[in-house]
Amino acid sequence: MKEILKEKGSIYCNSGAWDAFNNEIKRINPSKIFVISDTNTRKSCAPLFLDNYNFNLNPEFLEIPEGETHKNIETCLSLWKELSEKGADRNSLIINLGGGVVTDLGGFVASTFKRGIEFINIPTSLLSMVDASVGGKNGVDLGLIKNQIGVINNPILVLIDTRFLRTLPDNQKTSGYAEMLKHGLIHSKSYWNEIKNLNEIEIEGLEELLWESVLIKNSVITEDPFEKGLRKTLNYGHTLGHAIESYCLDDNEIKPLLHGEAIAIGMVLTTFLSGKLLGFPKDTLEDISSSILKKFEKVTFKSVDIDEIIKLLIYDKKNTNGKILFVLLEDIGIHKINCEVPNNLIIEAFEYYKNYK
Amino acid sequence: MKEILKEKGSIYCNSGAWDAFNNEIKRINPSKIFVISDTNTRKSCAPLFLDNYNFNLNPEFLEIPEGETHKNIETCLSLWKELSEKGADRNSLIINLGGGVVTDLGGFVASTFKRGIEFINIPTSLLSMVDASVGGKNGVDLGLIKNQIGVINNPILVLIDTRFLRTLPDNQKTSGYAEMLKHGLIHSKSYWNEIKNLNEIEIEGLEELLWESVLIKNSVITEDPFEKGLRKTLNYGHTLGHAIESYCLDDNEIKPLLHGEAIAIGMVLTTFLSGKLLGFPKDTLEDISSSILKKFEKVTFKSVDIDEIIKLLIYDKKNTNGKILFVLLEDIGIHKINCEVPNNLIIEAFEYYKNYK
Repeated sequence: MKEILKEKGSIYCNSGAWDAFNNEIKRINPSKIFVISDTNTRKSCAPLFLDNYNFNLNPEFLEIPEGETHKNIETCLSLWKELSEKGADRNSLIINLGGGVVTDLGGFVASTFKRGIEFINIPTSLLSMVDASVGGKNGVDLGLIKNQIGVINNPILVLIDTRFLRTLPDNQKTSGYAEMLKHGLIHSKSYWNEIKNLNEIEIEGLEELLWESVLIKNSVITEDPFEKGLRKTLNYGHTLGHAIESYCLDDNEIKPLLHGEAIAIGMVLTTFLSGKLLGFPKDTLEDISSSILKKFEKVTFKSVDIDEIIKLLIYDKKNTNGKILFVLLEDIGIHKINCEVPNNLIIEAFEYYKNYK
Repeated sequence: MKEILKEKGSIYCNSGAWDAFNNEIKRINPSKIFVISDTNTRKSCAPLFLDNYNFNLNPEFLEIPEGETHKNIETCLSLWKELSEKGADRNSLIINLGGGVVTDLGGFVASTFKRGIEFINIPTSLLSMVDASVGGKNGVDLGLIKNQIGVINNPILVLIDTRFLRTLPDNQKTSGYAEMLKHGLIHSKSYWNEIKNLNEIEIEGLEELLWESVLIKNSVITEDPFEKGLRKTLNYGHTLGHAIESYCLDDNEIKPLLHGEAIAIGMVLTTFLSGKLLGFPKDTLEDISSSILKKFEKVTFKSVDIDEIIKLLIYDKKNTNGKILFVLLEDIGIHKINCEVPNNLIIEAFEYYKNYK
């Protein structure tokens, strides 16, 4: 049985997970149960959820529009109002059924409604299973700034059922794959080698590799829950990746990227920077760039785009005293946090990405 | 020296308090300092603050409009945006300088900005000194529902300087006095007797009585930080009081009441209910009603008002499974939590209040 047991935020995967889920609900015996989903997961994931849900209280579904552009305070406001109108009280339970947007936003809504009510996360995308499910971070975007508003607060339980992935479009699978690659890069050469050549992201064989990713993330956040040091390594590729993601969400010629698609670009750029500043081995950089660019379509950035992305960097949550600080690597699994990177090197990294063949 | 030392949320009052404040800022060495105030406290309290502030970083003032009607998510949104634009980062410090609206709202803004940055509360009203300063509750209203959105999170330090009270209008002083009366009712006959006959709320002699109130509240929240039991006693008079306060904020013929003014009415009604349901002594009820109605002007409620107020009760955060639960008293200092009260008794309580001479 795949499980990580904790005082709060236990994680269960596949076999036995639904029993643990149903037992936990019986234990807390909520007054009402609300399921937050988006337009997609309401359709594609609710049936499997309802097949396995086993408690003598009909869950009420609350639906939010699909996509990162709705991960904002306005959507929270409409959920808070709906919860109030439907009589949610302090003993009500929220179940977040969806990808990262639903679990991030739903976790924030639950953590702040009546100063905090209990919630359960059921991640349904690969990305949210390997990333958003672990660590208790939640929140919403503020304009173009990702996750600017939020708190750290664990759900009482996380349930991973890989059958939800069957309904996931391919680009969403690839997006989640990016975070698995990241876990390899920051933590383990052997895990990197195992996953870098997955020819197709096949659900049936994915359970073991996915769980290894969860274990890596869990070991990091257990050691450093409040991001004083080690947890910052999870931002590998994200400083640039978030800025790229935000920029592409805004009105311009580049089409919006999924989170993992942006992070994949961020990892290529950041590994290049690691080479420049910490002597990251050239052949490994080559291996990483080629593995990533085999899976993720190249995006064309003009200089005006790059300038704007650099401007967005200064809003990143992790920046302190106006300096842009990066996590860099000396080699796979050997990190250095709080590295300052001059702007001209960032421009050079985009050049490297653009010219990579 | 009046101080309550804790890992987080230490409280300092008057002599020595500013030294503790300045030392704490030096210790955490923030990247930037933002002071949240409202239009009133920016004018009347900033000078005393700046006279005593001693750190080599100019604080930036952020101003919100004055009054409970602005204690909402829209005001938070404008502050979050302003903080982002002014380059606030994870090591920035927020100082909330104002009454309960500023400390409640500012505490929530700080607790959720970039998933939580440090903040200090400097309560400037009597109400916020004896109540909002202790216990880490923060949040904002949602429509007519008070404090519906928020978290529990302590400031790193609370500074009480009773000189701020010199600028406080009389009705604001009386409002704070209501919470002191409440601390007497739920906790201590001797404290009740000390304060019930204060002829004028004189600042100069208030320090000792105010501090006793802080100590009572602190002892309650230390024993029960998450409101499982004992902390509920702090809601004495508040279940009805909040509903009355909300109702009067809305458009109708009754003028808006200050928090303490509404709570004072709530305490008369609730003590009447305590008499009906728990045999609270008649002469003590008489003593309480007369002491309160000497200080707080009577408000006229029509039956339509009372009906609407009862409707609002069901939205109170403390209600569970659709039942309206009250804290009642068997006598001063002897409480019983989670008491169900039928609606007809509530109507009777309003009758008692109306006919009291």
